[in-house]
Amino acid sequence: MTVSADALPVFTPDLPINAARLWRSLMEMAAIGATPKGGNRRLALSDEDKAGRDLFVTWCRAAGCSVTVDAVGNIVARRAGTDPALPPVVIGSHLDTQPTGGRFDGVFGVLAGLEVIRTLNDAGIATRHPVEVVSWTNEEGARFSPPMMGSGVYTGEFTLQEILDKVGQDGARLGDELERIGYRGTADPTDHPMAAYFEAHIEQGPVLEDCGLPIGVVTGAQGQRWYEVTVTGREAHAGPTPMRLRKDALVGAARLVEAVRQVALDHGEDACGTVGILDVSPHSRNVIPGQCFLTADLRHPDMEVLGRMDAALRARAGDIGTALGLDVAVRDFWQFPSTAFDATLIGRVRASAEARGFAHRDIVSGAGHDAVYLARKVPTAMIFIPCEGGISHNERENIVPDHGAQGCAVLFDAVLDTAGRA
Amino acid sequence: MTVSADALPVFTPDLPINAARLWRSLMEMAAIGATPKGGNRRLALSDEDKAGRDLFVTWCRAAGCSVTVDAVGNIVARRAGTDPALPPVVIGSHLDTQPTGGRFDGVFGVLAGLEVIRTLNDAGIATRHPVEVVSWTNEEGARFSPPMMGSGVYTGEFTLQEILDKVGQDGARLGDELERIGYRGTADPTDHPMAAYFEAHIEQGPVLEDCGLPIGVVTGAQGQRWYEVTVTGREAHAGPTPMRLRKDALVGAARLVEAVRQVALDHGEDACGTVGILDVSPHSRNVIPGQCFLTADLRHPDMEVLGRMDAALRARAGDIGTALGLDVAVRDFWQFPSTAFDATLIGRVRASAEARGFAHRDIVSGAGHDAVYLARKVPTAMIFIPCEGGISHNERENIVPDHGAQGCAVLFDAVLDTAGRA
Repeated sequence: MTVSADALPVFTPDLPINAARLWRSLMEMAAIGATPKGGNRRLALSDEDKAGRDLFVTWCRAAGCSVTVDAVGNIVARRAGTDPALPPVVIGSHLDTQPTGGRFDGVFGVLAGLEVIRTLNDAGIATRHPVEVVSWTNEEGARFSPPMMGSGVYTGEFTLQEILDKVGQDGARLGDELERIGYRGTADPTDHPMAAYFEAHIEQGPVLEDCGLPIGVVTGAQGQRWYEVTVTGREAHAGPTPMRLRKDALVGAARLVEAVRQVALDHGEDACGTVGILDVSPHSRNVIPGQCFLTADLRHPDMEVLGRMDAALRARAGDIGTALGLDVAVRDFWQFPSTAFDATLIGRVRASAEARGFAHRDIVSGAGHDAVYLARKVPTAMIFIPCEGGISHNERENIVPDHGAQGCAVLFDAVLDTAGRA
Repeated sequence: MTVSADALPVFTPDLPINAARLWRSLMEMAAIGATPKGGNRRLALSDEDKAGRDLFVTWCRAAGCSVTVDAVGNIVARRAGTDPALPPVVIGSHLDTQPTGGRFDGVFGVLAGLEVIRTLNDAGIATRHPVEVVSWTNEEGARFSPPMMGSGVYTGEFTLQEILDKVGQDGARLGDELERIGYRGTADPTDHPMAAYFEAHIEQGPVLEDCGLPIGVVTGAQGQRWYEVTVTGREAHAGPTPMRLRKDALVGAARLVEAVRQVALDHGEDACGTVGILDVSPHSRNVIPGQCFLTADLRHPDMEVLGRMDAALRARAGDIGTALGLDVAVRDFWQFPSTAFDATLIGRVRASAEARGFAHRDIVSGAGHDAVYLARKVPTAMIFIPCEGGISHNERENIVPDHGAQGCAVLFDAVLDTAGRA
């Protein structure tokens, strides 16, 4: 895809980074796996993901970086520092997308990192610490679940082997797909010391836009609890089975969907509850469903409140099963404690926004990010920029180009402060 | 599969038909597409359906019948009568099953028909009318929707071409699948005069078992209305999208599942309402569903009540959409008026049960059957036998072998009365 200069937006002057170059890179990456509605579909380790990775690697090498790929497919592009003893300051995010995802979720952070390196090159700035950009494998968790696999292996949340053996919704094994697309490297993913980790990301929520602010200084992340629920009733013919004799698993599943919503509504403005998957068996128009499978996702920034939400959901699930004569099995699938980022790095992000006169506020991330795993091992901070209507995980995901440039400028300042001018 | 004589149940003596032979045939057919839980999976025009058809054709030829296949794959096995001017008395049902179906739904009617012919042969009885057994294509409507295609083409409900062009859940075209399995005949499906049509079937409901009766004299069938509903909201990231700003299509779909159930409960004991299919898009754990598709099936023996159920469902669907800010589109997919069977033929079924001392009651069919289409064109009657727990469209579907033999005996009597001894 060629983007003509005419198509470029007009950017705020006096930014340290090259806003037009960043935007062109975003649009070129968005041409890979582009969807008819203007979004992106680059499912982890698909052919489209491979194409996106290849483009990124080409760009990194052109920017003078050395590129390595570790055994779980994380790509690390390194710009050397002047002090060989110092660990790198790392910028990261992901290039994979949801099945009907947008052009900026993850991609913005990776390409903003690349723009920081290109800017350092342009300005002839040497840093004491190396500066790296990492693209983490399978952040989305859409094709292969759970999410944030590459960063999770790095921080020891998962073993390499368990991740390689994961089987996707399409039946493919993750390790085989890594081989297939040529991104099964040899480096040990856990052996990668870092001085600091920064991630720039779209907010994926409506708060910054509502407040009219281009920069969110992210202080931490919500706690999350993910569940898998199986509802078992008795399948039977839809015609001659009187309502009073039915054990309809889908009626139970429908009440669980309502329960997940109600549990969130009952626990304040910061609580979220979502059912994203519901599968009906045997899936025939005139058969009363005998079994349903659904997922549930509860989030709250306060772990104590999240614990009460968990208890409320389990109690409601039990009540629903009893009322309908169904077996309702609720299993913990994945959880994520709430996370606090590094105060020093948060301070550098805030200081950059202040110094450049970008309006900002502190914000807690409602979404999971690679940075949330990274924070367990490395001093970490995040920068949010607004996205249009708060819409993300959606083909219509969009940003104001200037916000992207401003977020990248703050990233540049914070990284340079941390890596140190030589 | 070989069934040893030792495995045969003990049957009521003094039946006109050969109960052991009927049972053996049922068990041999059940070995084709047998499922681990003891049911059957012979989806219409699958390899298993072909194998079942082949076995049936082999048996019919061995019984001296001429066999023809029409252009929609209906199989007609004919035992000649003595008067070439008379149209046949036809016995029919279907050999295809639900995805996780039972061993008797449809199959019992076809093989009971074959047993009637075998019994006529054994006894050396000539009839004035020919006697035919028909296996109708795709009664279940599971792989290819709508159901009752073969009988529907016969009675002019559907054109041959529209049925040949139907595409199944697996993407296969019906006409191509007919060719593939070798059951795309040349005969015009509509050109098949009949003197009368009989169908013996399991009840697929709990009424006869509850009453302890082996025979149901079916006087007609419930009216049915089938719908397709699409709920459209806005997909978004599950984490940072506050509950109050969501347009969650699955919450709307869940309320529709409850609404379908409530509409049935509000309209008396004879009303049924079922959602058998619910699909969620984009089907990812951490994405608020943007669109859901579901089916609804409403049934009542009184068309006026069914009309009120239809109006109630549409009103509730509108309310749900308004309350949640969702677009809810309800489309009519298929309907079936309630049906009255032929009084003379019903009388013959009842007279046989009386004469043989089989306890019986009149009953309305809650399920759709090929007989319900046939009744629009041909004098028609049905015979029900109980099934265990009223369970059907389920691998655990089961019958008391004696009930099958008694139902077949009543079928024999009614067919012979109608076809006339030569």
